[in-house]
Amino acid sequence: MAASEFTLIYRYFSALGSGEAVDLSVGDDCAILRLQKDERLATSVDTVVEGVHFPEDMFPEDIGYRAVSVAVSDLAAMGARPLGMTIALTLPKADEFWLNAFSQGVAQAVSKYGLPLIGGDTTRGALTITVQVLGALPLERALLRSGARPGDAVFVSGTLGDAAGALAFLNGQWQPAPVHAEFLLQRFNRPDARVALGQEILGVATSAIDISDGLLADAGHIAAASGVQLRIEPEALPLSPALSSCLDNNSRLRWALSGGDDYELCFTLPADCAAPDGCTRIGDVTEGEGVYTGLDLDFEAGYQHF
Amino acid sequence: MAASEFTLIYRYFSALGSGEAVDLSVGDDCAILRLQKDERLATSVDTVVEGVHFPEDMFPEDIGYRAVSVAVSDLAAMGARPLGMTIALTLPKADEFWLNAFSQGVAQAVSKYGLPLIGGDTTRGALTITVQVLGALPLERALLRSGARPGDAVFVSGTLGDAAGALAFLNGQWQPAPVHAEFLLQRFNRPDARVALGQEILGVATSAIDISDGLLADAGHIAAASGVQLRIEPEALPLSPALSSCLDNNSRLRWALSGGDDYELCFTLPADCAAPDGCTRIGDVTEGEGVYTGLDLDFEAGYQHF
Repeated sequence: MAASEFTLIYRYFSALGSGEAVDLSVGDDCAILRLQKDERLATSVDTVVEGVHFPEDMFPEDIGYRAVSVAVSDLAAMGARPLGMTIALTLPKADEFWLNAFSQGVAQAVSKYGLPLIGGDTTRGALTITVQVLGALPLERALLRSGARPGDAVFVSGTLGDAAGALAFLNGQWQPAPVHAEFLLQRFNRPDARVALGQEILGVATSAIDISDGLLADAGHIAAASGVQLRIEPEALPLSPALSSCLDNNSRLRWALSGGDDYELCFTLPADCAAPDGCTRIGDVTEGEGVYTGLDLDFEAGYQHF
Repeated sequence: MAASEFTLIYRYFSALGSGEAVDLSVGDDCAILRLQKDERLATSVDTVVEGVHFPEDMFPEDIGYRAVSVAVSDLAAMGARPLGMTIALTLPKADEFWLNAFSQGVAQAVSKYGLPLIGGDTTRGALTITVQVLGALPLERALLRSGARPGDAVFVSGTLGDAAGALAFLNGQWQPAPVHAEFLLQRFNRPDARVALGQEILGVATSAIDISDGLLADAGHIAAASGVQLRIEPEALPLSPALSSCLDNNSRLRWALSGGDDYELCFTLPADCAAPDGCTRIGDVTEGEGVYTGLDLDFEAGYQHF
C-alpha cells in the first residue's frame, strides 16, 4: 500500500476537527485553539502501547475509543471542559481496514466527549497511540490532588474493579456468566471518562484524581499531595453485579483496590456534602499519611509502568 | 531496575517545568497554562521512532534535543511564542544511563527554546518519543501555508540539504572531510528550530512552513494550500560549505531539494520585502500549481512516512 501520510490523515480524520474553540484544525503546521475570556488551558498526554496497555487482539475500533477515553479522563479529573485533542499514531503498516475501524472508534469518542481532533502525526513502528487532550479551566479553579483536608469524605464514581475483572477473565482466571462477561469487557474496552462529573464537582471537591493505576495507588497520590491519610472502608467499595458474581472474595477485593483501567474519579468533599449522582462515599480523610484500609493486603498497590 | 514511573519522571524531568505561562506543571492529572490577554493557543505534535527517524546508535542526549527541536519547528513555522511542551516517552526498559543522557538533551532544548516541560507519560515499548508543543499567537495573526500570492518572493532560512548529506555520510555514500562531517552531523543531530525568525516574520510573511520532509514537498504544501505555483531557482539554493564540498552535483541537488530534517523555514514575502537576516531568496510565486524548478528530476520529492 502506497498511501502517503497526508492521504491517510485526511481520509480518516479530517472530518473530526471542527469545534467551538477551534480556529484552525488539521492541515497546517499547528492547530489553533481559542480560549474564552478568563479561562486557562489544561493539558495532559497519555500513551497506550499494544501488548502492554491493551491486548494484541483488541478490535481497532475499541483501541481508538479507549485511547481517547484514557486521555480525556485526566481532563475529567481536573474539572476541565474539553476543547480538542491531537493523536500521534505509530503503526507497523498503513492498513486500510485497521485505520478505518480505528478512526470509527476515535470518531465515537470525538462525539461522546465533544472533543474535536485538531492535529496529529502518523509514523511507522510498533503500535503506539499517544493522545494529548486540551481543555479549559476557569482562571481561579481546578481539581487538584493537593486539597484534601482532615474531616473531608472520600468518594468514587461508578463501580471499581470491572476492568481488572475483565482482564482476569481474558487471562482465563475466572469464568463469569455471559451477561457479566459482556458488561466487564465493555468496561475495559469502552471506558467512559467522567467529564461531566469533573465539571460538576469543580469548585466543591477539595481534591480529585482519576483511577487509572488502581484505587490504592491513586488515592495514595491524593494522600501524598495533600499531606493527609485516606481511610477507606473496603465494605463500602461499589462493585458491579458482574464483579460481585465472582465468589472469590480476595480476587474481588484485589481488583477493586488495585486494578487499574476503570477511569472512575476518586475525590474528596467537605463532610457535609451529599454524594453526587452515581457516586459512593468510601471513607474519610484524617491526619496522617498514605491509604489505610484496615486490611492485611497481600498484593501490590497499583500498576507499575516498568 | 525497579524504579517506578513516578520516580523516573520526577528524578529526571521535574526541574524543567517552570515558566512564565505555567500555572501548574508535572505532578497532577493535567498541567495548566495561562495565555496572555488577546492570545490564542498554537499546538502541534511530532513523533520520532528509533530506526525510522533517527539511527539506533544515536546518542540519547542528541535524541532528546532533536525530538524537541523537530516539534518546536512547527511553532516556529506558525510564528508562535513557545509556552510549554509535554513528552510521551516509550522505551524498552528503564535504563538510568539512557534516561540521564536523554534528559540532558531535553534540558538543553528547554533552555534553548524557553519551553518548559510541563507534563508527560512514560511507557514500556519500542523507543518512541512524542513531543507536543504549545505556543501563543496573537488573536488575529498566524503564519499559515495558505496565504502566498502571485508576485510574492520565496525564501528559506539557513542552508539546505545538510541533514540529508549527514545521513548519506552515515550510510557510507560519501566521505566529507572531518571538519565538514562534524558540521553536517551537528546539523542532523542538533537541528535548531527557527523560533525567533518565525516570530519576526509573523504579520509580514504571506505563508510559511518548516522544511521537515524536504523543500520540494514542503514548498508543495504552500503551493497547494495557497492555490499558486512556487518557482524555485536551483542555483539560488543556499548550501553550506560542508555540503558544497561534495563534488557530485546530482547528490547535492537531491539533498537540498528533497532531503528532510533540516528544519529551516520556507516562507513567502511580498516582493518589496528584503530578506531577513540569514535567509535567502530562492524564487517567486506565480499563478499555477505545484513547485517548478526547471529541472528534470529523477528522485522522489519528499519523505514518505509509509
